[in-house]
Amino acid sequence: MKRPWVFLLLSLLIFGMAGVAFAETAPDPFGIKTLADNPGAAVDYVWVLVCGFLVMFMQAGFAMVETGFCRAKNATNLMAKNTIDLVAGSLGFFVVGYVFLKGADAGGFIGLGPLFLRGGQYDVGKYLDFFWQLVFCATAATIVSGAVAERLKFSAYLFYSVIISMLVYPIYGHWVWGGGWLSRLPFGLGHLDFAGSGVVHAVGGMFGLAGAIVLGPRFGKFTKEGKPNAIPGHSITLAALGVFILWFGWFGFNPGSTFNAHHLRISVIAVNTLLAASAGGLAALLIVLMKTKTYDVGMMLNGVLAGLVAVTAPCAWVEAWAAVVIGSIAGILVVIGVYTLEGLKIDDPVGAVSVHGVNGIWGLISVGLFADGTYGNYATEAPFVKGLFYGGGAGQLIAQVIGAAVAGLWAFLCGYIVFKILDAVIGIRVSPREEIGGLDVVEHGGSAYPDFYTQNK
Amino acid sequence: MKRPWVFLLLSLLIFGMAGVAFAETAPDPFGIKTLADNPGAAVDYVWVLVCGFLVMFMQAGFAMVETGFCRAKNATNLMAKNTIDLVAGSLGFFVVGYVFLKGADAGGFIGLGPLFLRGGQYDVGKYLDFFWQLVFCATAATIVSGAVAERLKFSAYLFYSVIISMLVYPIYGHWVWGGGWLSRLPFGLGHLDFAGSGVVHAVGGMFGLAGAIVLGPRFGKFTKEGKPNAIPGHSITLAALGVFILWFGWFGFNPGSTFNAHHLRISVIAVNTLLAASAGGLAALLIVLMKTKTYDVGMMLNGVLAGLVAVTAPCAWVEAWAAVVIGSIAGILVVIGVYTLEGLKIDDPVGAVSVHGVNGIWGLISVGLFADGTYGNYATEAPFVKGLFYGGGAGQLIAQVIGAAVAGLWAFLCGYIVFKILDAVIGIRVSPREEIGGLDVVEHGGSAYPDFYTQNK
Amino acid sequence: MKRPWVFLLLSLLIFGMAGVAFAETAPDPFGIKTLADNPGAAVDYVWVLVCGFLVMFMQAGFAMVETGFCRAKNATNLMAKNTIDLVAGSLGFFVVGYVFLKGADAGGFIGLGPLFLRGGQYDVGKYLDFFWQLVFCATAATIVSGAVAERLKFSAYLFYSVIISMLVYPIYGHWVWGGGWLSRLPFGLGHLDFAGSGVVHAVGGMFGLAGAIVLGPRFGKFTKEGKPNAIPGHSITLAALGVFILWFGWFGFNPGSTFNAHHLRISVIAVNTLLAASAGGLAALLIVLMKTKTYDVGMMLNGVLAGLVAVTAPCAWVEAWAAVVIGSIAGILVVIGVYTLEGLKIDDPVGAVSVHGVNGIWGLISVGLFADGTYGNYATEAPFVKGLFYGGGAGQLIAQVIGAAVAGLWAFLCGYIVFKILDAVIGIRVSPREEIGGLDVVEHGGSAYPDFYTQNK
Repeated sequence: MKRPWVFLLLSLLIFGMAGVAFAETAPDPFGIKTLADNPGAAVDYVWVLVCGFLVMFMQAGFAMVETGFCRAKNATNLMAKNTIDLVAGSLGFFVVGYVFLKGADAGGFIGLGPLFLRGGQYDVGKYLDFFWQLVFCATAATIVSGAVAERLKFSAYLFYSVIISMLVYPIYGHWVWGGGWLSRLPFGLGHLDFAGSGVVHAVGGMFGLAGAIVLGPRFGKFTKEGKPNAIPGHSITLAALGVFILWFGWFGFNPGSTFNAHHLRISVIAVNTLLAASAGGLAALLIVLMKTKTYDVGMMLNGVLAGLVAVTAPCAWVEAWAAVVIGSIAGILVVIGVYTLEGLKIDDPVGAVSVHGVNGIWGLISVGLFADGTYGNYATEAPFVKGLFYGGGAGQLIAQVIGAAVAGLWAFLCGYIVFKILDAVIGIRVSPREEIGGLDVVEHGGSAYPDFYTQNK
Repeated sequence: MKRPWVFLLLSLLIFGMAGVAFAETAPDPFGIKTLADNPGAAVDYVWVLVCGFLVMFMQAGFAMVETGFCRAKNATNLMAKNTIDLVAGSLGFFVVGYVFLKGADAGGFIGLGPLFLRGGQYDVGKYLDFFWQLVFCATAATIVSGAVAERLKFSAYLFYSVIISMLVYPIYGHWVWGGGWLSRLPFGLGHLDFAGSGVVHAVGGMFGLAGAIVLGPRFGKFTKEGKPNAIPGHSITLAALGVFILWFGWFGFNPGSTFNAHHLRISVIAVNTLLAASAGGLAALLIVLMKTKTYDVGMMLNGVLAGLVAVTAPCAWVEAWAAVVIGSIAGILVVIGVYTLEGLKIDDPVGAVSVHGVNGIWGLISVGLFADGTYGNYATEAPFVKGLFYGGGAGQLIAQVIGAAVAGLWAFLCGYIVFKILDAVIGIRVSPREEIGGLDVVEHGGSAYPDFYTQNK
Repeated sequence: MKRPWVFLLLSLLIFGMAGVAFAETAPDPFGIKTLADNPGAAVDYVWVLVCGFLVMFMQAGFAMVETGFCRAKNATNLMAKNTIDLVAGSLGFFVVGYVFLKGADAGGFIGLGPLFLRGGQYDVGKYLDFFWQLVFCATAATIVSGAVAERLKFSAYLFYSVIISMLVYPIYGHWVWGGGWLSRLPFGLGHLDFAGSGVVHAVGGMFGLAGAIVLGPRFGKFTKEGKPNAIPGHSITLAALGVFILWFGWFGFNPGSTFNAHHLRISVIAVNTLLAASAGGLAALLIVLMKTKTYDVGMMLNGVLAGLVAVTAPCAWVEAWAAVVIGSIAGILVVIGVYTLEGLKIDDPVGAVSVHGVNGIWGLISVGLFADGTYGNYATEAPFVKGLFYGGGAGQLIAQVIGAAVAGLWAFLCGYIVFKILDAVIGIRVSPREEIGGLDVVEHGGSAYPDFYTQNK
């Protein structure tokens, strides 16, 4: 960086020439054709964009939840990771991920087409879809950071972010949302996942599980006898703030997944999203209260998230009381999940696997049980989706179980391979000295809270 | 919890059978009829939902303001309370509160109808209304936690949340917004409360006043001679963040209360909401500056909230300059309120009574003064609302004063009775040892900030 | 304040009479005419208002970023400043700023017309425009607080807020967005600034530069030999939260600047906004990594903001790959800017000058390079904007360079004069003792974090 201005001018020249070279006829960059074909498009664009903004804001929620539930000595590192997964992941998704997800279907396995949103994709509708898919991909990417918190190297996380955004998420997403093989299963209406209990949450959660296993537990998490120690987070306040932000953002995530404001069903989806979260929070609180006689705020907060994750797949196809049931079960499952993982000596510092992995799968299955036949696949308005309890038979349930199994396996295997390879090549775990001293000082040059006296726990 | 899976499967079976048993013909769960009748409905749905999301996000704002203005040793407890009031309150409102609020009017006193959003209520329009009413109810519920902070048991708060959401809020709400007796007062156009200065804020604030009185002041708040001690909050940063979140959310609260995007009046409401808040903040800052020669940030923040609360009732019916006047007076009133309560030896840790109670009442009254006759009741577009200063005579003012008095009395009496009964049955105040040590450790098993060295103040 | 009620009643009487005196015929306060003329107006109103709410929420983002990057001992003061600039600035803008910006053009230099939104301005469209302009003005105002942090008196900041909102911002804004002389430059389509890289960010950043120069550096920022010392902020967590809030709010700032939801181009703008931010963050991270072998989170966060600032002017006129290029260069520029300012011994605690000033200018220039001729000036849909790389010749580039130079000079000179005059009249820098002890105790009566043990750095 001796001559930054030279570097700048050169870059400009190169990119400028590239621009001229690649300049292309744009199908509908202004949107005139789109609006002429569909005068109601403006409302749909407003709806999808505003909901997409809310989904993007969930990044802040994940950042706050994860840092709140972890220790002060790793707070800078968690901020770095929660920023880089959006920063690097979105660029990776822009380069190639989007095409793998939504390009022309190749054998039911992957989408193909021009990269960099070029080659005739300079169109308002295409950009709208890209925006939506991108913020969803970024959500899946950021889930993993919680499961691998407090011991994964930043460099490994940077590589991981790009890989999940370029390959793992888009390919599975193609199977469900891109016209791939899961969407065409010969059971029910094929595998259905309205807003991504599977595509986003089960994938993120099970990928994280692989990461937690490959990394092993944090120092001090388990005693020599294998008993788990509680490692309390450094700010319940920020964790709660994060949950509120996520809850808020989820109102973009679920209702926005109609991708169409003229599906007035959006009101039903919003109600289901709110009630399932409440039910999950209450169930988790009460279960733990029975067990420990304490009002465990962390578990209530994770119960809220569990309810949200679970209702994400069924939210458009069920009635309000069913959302309450689905959320309640999610709240129970998250508690069982956390205790089970501890029993297996797997260390998931923030409960990401139980919240997103376990309940992502439960959400997928619940569609096959509770879908009540009043709303269709958002791609095809009819026929309507019917689950077991509403006389739809077992067909949809089978499709859901298959999709859930595939999501879990795909994400877990990819995660295992990715982290194993990264470990062999660059090493993924910080040194014991760094872990005990905190990742902030060594990796980022300083604590997150230098003005405060903190104790190194 | 020895056999969680058995428990789960049993639950599923029971709920599944219940679902089949209760399955019902849904009037318009997809929204096709609604859209055919009103092609502009999509815009209205987008507007109401997005505004509703903003209102829900105010929960985060309340959580941050209250914890910021209280001590570190009670931060976990405040997070727990600010979460449970939404979690338990929304379920209570779902079960029965909504029907009491918006069911078929019975004698002007209460609404009646089927519970659980069932019995022909599976309709997109009904769900939209339910979502809106729910987030408003949750706002009223969360106001109280500030007034009773740092000494109320969590269990008492849990019961309180359910009671206010099932009974106290819905019944008063029915009187004003459900076609009840206050809305039909034979003065002016009946009692009017555009977005809830009374229904939400005066009710929450006066209920909180009762709680603060029943509980008595915190240890150390008043000297033996009755002089008030300042008990500073533990994070002005989070308190300010909370105020910004609330201000942001209020743009859903007020403009969204048109429940209709085709009332372009929403732009006027947004402007009035912004300016009243600014005026309230400036007035409170300057008044305290004159008195203490200090720029009191806490009071400026409460002044902003006071302006927002006050303009909530009149926001749709007044011009911008009037919003500035209403907000300025609110900023003065909140300062007077805080000093007056301290003089009465009532301990309201965050100023909730002065912000929401006093200014909720002021907001209601201001409608009778400043309404300028350019906009109608949102239920009936004409005739337009006119206050004293615009030649409307005293009719509307009388209706406003009656409604304000009823709101204050109803909420205070209900609050007094609820907290007295809860105190007799389960006890509402933590033990002195718990209060001095902080509620976090005893009720929730740990501090909110275990990594930091804190001083027990 | 001996008789507050007398004061209140008197105020009410005076304002009431004023109301009657000033009551005026309102052109379209309900919006009936507007909607009849343009049935699609409801969507546009929803779009502009929701985006405006997001812009307002950026205030919270600025507050968190600035306090996070500064020391704990000045956190209360930063909250006070970030609140007062909205509170006092919005009232100043209401009184006179708006007219100077958007009133009837007088000689290309300033707008003139009735104050206080009166004189026939009681119209839904006018209020909508006022709301939008106000939240933009408030953004410019709040940028400065970062550059002058930790040493400027609160009273000076209060006066500054009013001056920039009443005069400096509106006048330059008039030149570009109010039909003033810059918008009519005889090059290209005149100077263009889609969402305010220049009007908001360059003005805020360069005004801040003047403030930082007039004030001089903080104690301890530079050694006797002139070497810069790092003064780390007190909460990277809050700084990151702030950046996420700003990123979220920017989706209102840029796409909302179409002021029209029927420009489906909003999807392209959203994509460009997201990708430029990511590119800026990644570029800044990698550049600093090369130099220091550390993952510098603070610089990555500022890189994200730099990308957002730079893409603000061109966002509507460029393709996605160009947004990535523009953002990458912004990420490089912000690093160069920070080091250059330190080399010049100018102390800008949070990097506001490099983020907003330098990249505001870069954003303006980039329009003249990358505009691809697929979208017009938002005021005039055609002809479309074309930059150098797309065969538009140098015309637009010249207009952009002139506008950028004017923005920088105007803001810097105004800032220099304003702070010099304020310094002469009331003194703008706190005493050395106050600065070392922290502004919170002396100016605001207490620390932001009284429950925590902090070290005075």
